[in-house]
Amino acid sequence: MAKYSIGVDFGTESGRAVLVDVADGREVATAVYPYSHGVIDEKLPESGVGLEPDWALQDPEDYLRTFQTTIPAVLKESGINPADVIGLGVDFTACTMLPVKADGTPLCVLPEFRAQPHAWVKLWKHHSAQPEADKINLTARRMKLDWLDRYGGKISSEWFFSKVLQILDEAPEIYQAADRLLEATDWVIWQLTGVETRNSCTAGYKALWSKREGFPEKSYFKELDPRLENVVDEKMTRTILPIGDRAGGLTAQAAKWTGLKPGTAVAIANVDAHVAVPAVAVTEPGSMVMIMGTSICHMVLGDEEHVVPGMCGYVEDGIIPGFFGYEAGQSCVGDHFAWFVENCVPGRYEREAQERGIDIHQLLEEKASRLKPGESGLLALDWWNGNRSVLVDVDLTGLLMGATLATKAEEIYRALIEATAYGTRVIVDTFQQNGVPIRELVACGGLPEKNKLLMQIYADVTGREIKVSASKQTPALGSAMFGAVAAGKAAGGYDSIYDAAQTMAHLKHETFKPIAENQLVYEKLFAEYQRLHDYFGRGENKVMKTLKKIKAEVKHVAG
Amino acid sequence: MAKYSIGVDFGTESGRAVLVDVADGREVATAVYPYSHGVIDEKLPESGVGLEPDWALQDPEDYLRTFQTTIPAVLKESGINPADVIGLGVDFTACTMLPVKADGTPLCVLPEFRAQPHAWVKLWKHHSAQPEADKINLTARRMKLDWLDRYGGKISSEWFFSKVLQILDEAPEIYQAADRLLEATDWVIWQLTGVETRNSCTAGYKALWSKREGFPEKSYFKELDPRLENVVDEKMTRTILPIGDRAGGLTAQAAKWTGLKPGTAVAIANVDAHVAVPAVAVTEPGSMVMIMGTSICHMVLGDEEHVVPGMCGYVEDGIIPGFFGYEAGQSCVGDHFAWFVENCVPGRYEREAQERGIDIHQLLEEKASRLKPGESGLLALDWWNGNRSVLVDVDLTGLLMGATLATKAEEIYRALIEATAYGTRVIVDTFQQNGVPIRELVACGGLPEKNKLLMQIYADVTGREIKVSASKQTPALGSAMFGAVAAGKAAGGYDSIYDAAQTMAHLKHETFKPIAENQLVYEKLFAEYQRLHDYFGRGENKVMKTLKKIKAEVKHVAG
Repeated sequence: MAKYSIGVDFGTESGRAVLVDVADGREVATAVYPYSHGVIDEKLPESGVGLEPDWALQDPEDYLRTFQTTIPAVLKESGINPADVIGLGVDFTACTMLPVKADGTPLCVLPEFRAQPHAWVKLWKHHSAQPEADKINLTARRMKLDWLDRYGGKISSEWFFSKVLQILDEAPEIYQAADRLLEATDWVIWQLTGVETRNSCTAGYKALWSKREGFPEKSYFKELDPRLENVVDEKMTRTILPIGDRAGGLTAQAAKWTGLKPGTAVAIANVDAHVAVPAVAVTEPGSMVMIMGTSICHMVLGDEEHVVPGMCGYVEDGIIPGFFGYEAGQSCVGDHFAWFVENCVPGRYEREAQERGIDIHQLLEEKASRLKPGESGLLALDWWNGNRSVLVDVDLTGLLMGATLATKAEEIYRALIEATAYGTRVIVDTFQQNGVPIRELVACGGLPEKNKLLMQIYADVTGREIKVSASKQTPALGSAMFGAVAAGKAAGGYDSIYDAAQTMAHLKHETFKPIAENQLVYEKLFAEYQRLHDYFGRGENKVMKTLKKIKAEVKHVAG
Repeated sequence: MAKYSIGVDFGTESGRAVLVDVADGREVATAVYPYSHGVIDEKLPESGVGLEPDWALQDPEDYLRTFQTTIPAVLKESGINPADVIGLGVDFTACTMLPVKADGTPLCVLPEFRAQPHAWVKLWKHHSAQPEADKINLTARRMKLDWLDRYGGKISSEWFFSKVLQILDEAPEIYQAADRLLEATDWVIWQLTGVETRNSCTAGYKALWSKREGFPEKSYFKELDPRLENVVDEKMTRTILPIGDRAGGLTAQAAKWTGLKPGTAVAIANVDAHVAVPAVAVTEPGSMVMIMGTSICHMVLGDEEHVVPGMCGYVEDGIIPGFFGYEAGQSCVGDHFAWFVENCVPGRYEREAQERGIDIHQLLEEKASRLKPGESGLLALDWWNGNRSVLVDVDLTGLLMGATLATKAEEIYRALIEATAYGTRVIVDTFQQNGVPIRELVACGGLPEKNKLLMQIYADVTGREIKVSASKQTPALGSAMFGAVAAGKAAGGYDSIYDAAQTMAHLKHETFKPIAENQLVYEKLFAEYQRLHDYFGRGENKVMKTLKKIKAEVKHVAG
């Protein structure tokens, strides 16, 4: 009898369940639940309390509704017997965190806190905790704490303790009332299993934990704020379970929500980007996985511990047990092209695309494909949304040069694609130069499906073959794989994620190989990119920051 | 009885006659003749002989047809007695030159040369003589000839001897057959008066002549090419008449063409930009005249001789007798905005403009006007068509920085306007720092009429008041003024261009004054512009040239 596993992928706007055949990874059924409250960034539901700029919240009940809606839907669509579903895995955006009571009840569902923004889930892109992030960084540097090196020397405002400190600063009563502070991904596993567990991936990448050193010392937290001294022991836990473990079995209540059998194995919580790595069959060092969408998340496994400047972080057992999981990122990729199409493409291109019944990205890709590398004479710095790796600087901005009166939209479009490829090349080179070798690239996400020109340019610029995930919903597949591992071989699953990847993960037959003559031109162009990257990005000319400062002053005066 | 003068302005696509009241400069009648052959840049008329890239020719008979069409038209429209037209002046694009026989017959009208491209008029924007210009510059530098300093250290491929040397190189039989080589502006005066004269403006700005030193030495021409040793004596003349002189009287034949009286006074030939200076009432040092259209031509008068780096040239008596006339230029202004509107403005802006019945430039100006200086966070280098002054480098290219995912089309549009204003500021500062003071700016041409935002930005960036010509056809008015001077006071005209400017030239009442709070912000932004200008423009980072080189190599391989 065939066995199945379900992966549930919690995105920014919706949650998605995929029911997968454990034998071969075949995706049998899919269902999506668009969150009823989506991203809450203007005012709170019901109370209508307004939010400050850069806030982004979510409703934890939307996560439960995702289980309640999508799992019954995939069971129904596939027609399989729920008893043949042996495991369940979950992945999430991160750091997406919330304050809850000791029994797991989110503070925001309690009437007394319903109108208090800090009681709700803070989404990964909640960006208003920058002052707290600055304090965390400054304090760590002043105290010469070397865990900062694991995160490229800088903690993000998106991360766990930035958000915790913001709650403490701005709503101490919420901090006080919270028995537990945790990642939403751990919270949903708690709701399924009735047991609070914490996963090594978010603990490591977002909450400063490491397998060898644990969390930062109490003295550090005390220095940040005396009230924070015992945050780990009071509101978190020092027990962190490695990725690949079983969190527990489905409770009777969760079984009722989903239509699955009570006791069905549930995997330790995971993160969307990280769970994609085994789902593209990468379980060893040497391959860099790129989750390519609005931004790119880069994942590499390493045998050894290396400090690589400007990465987002590295965590032992953070992606695959037994390896150091290195993460880097580019903050503006698909977003970049979307901005361009929205703001810079002339009406006649829109009309041509309409007449031919294709979308404007396809039209631009087609026109840009006819250009040779270097033919446009353009060069861009891909910093429209700052630079995550390796400069870790949100105040950098986009640059385009080489424009003439003959420059066409498709040339700029291609230059923007090339710029993001150079950005990836900088990351690859930085890993390579710091002892984390990268032989090949493996891509998943929306972009590789949509834009073959982009993939070829990435291959040409990085000089590396790019393989592509066979799945269009790679994270959900990865979660289902972890679900099968939680079930174990005895139950029809697998004993390790390596074994699961052997049969359940698939790559497309078609790959993108570097074309030698393109590489030659791109080597020259990349040398120019690198020089501009360092000139504007490493402080020699701070014009981009000066422009932002002037902009802020002018807006301040105007406001 | 009122007296009148006619100015004829020969542009790139058409010729325009304006009949003006000598007493007050009132423009009584206007007529335009679009050249039947326009700009010849693909194949010759009749023979169909194809032209190489970067060629631009004209048909000299189109100039005669301009006289034959437009002057009768303004006489008819105004209804005045031809006997009351006391003078005629002409201005032209330059360097626009042609080879002719001793009697003035253009070689291209002779059957034996009709199919030979080099026999036709080479228009100012004929750009294929770059190798010859390079040789002219290299040879002058090698021989340490200091006249090069008068031209900012570099001769353009557009200028007279570059074009002459190209004829000699590529069609020695045409060079041989040409009894005279001359500017089209001098040629049309010859056709009107029957006398060959040469004007100090084109001789000085385009043919390396100066009042004090004459033309370069024979030894220099010999070094360029032995056959060129006696070019001045054989095919030109050393007699150069100053601007403001009378060239002669209208011949019987020209009187028949135009309907004017034989003997009507005709002024020495002139150039469109230069003739505009007295037409905006500038006859003394301290004011910089800007002829603002697709590009900007900057004219300043000086009491003394100064070497100003990066200008186009300075000529004694070149603009107004008794002064050194300094000329600088920006090669891409209106062209810049036209490129932007054509290539970078989204369809929804086009639709909004259509719905509101305004043109897209108006819409962008309106939206951009709502922004404060510095608010966009953008900064551009205005080099989409290279940089004329002060860097004199056609291989520089456009740059835009500071873009984010929130950047809008109107912000880029404004940044491009600001960039051209910074370009003007560099020119103003360079003049000022080198002993040619500039107190105020006086603008004419199409742009000041069309874009008030642009004019205010120029005032704010340069920190100087800008006055604007009252005439919409300033060059033709200037030519009519010189016509009145050629006639002289006794005939009802004027004895000098100063006197003519007192009554015939008018400025608008409305001026653009710097706004102090804008100036403060623009000072900061200009400092950043200046730094990038020098970094990319003066050789520290040659990336723009490298990109052009790579582009040329790629095209060469592809071709």
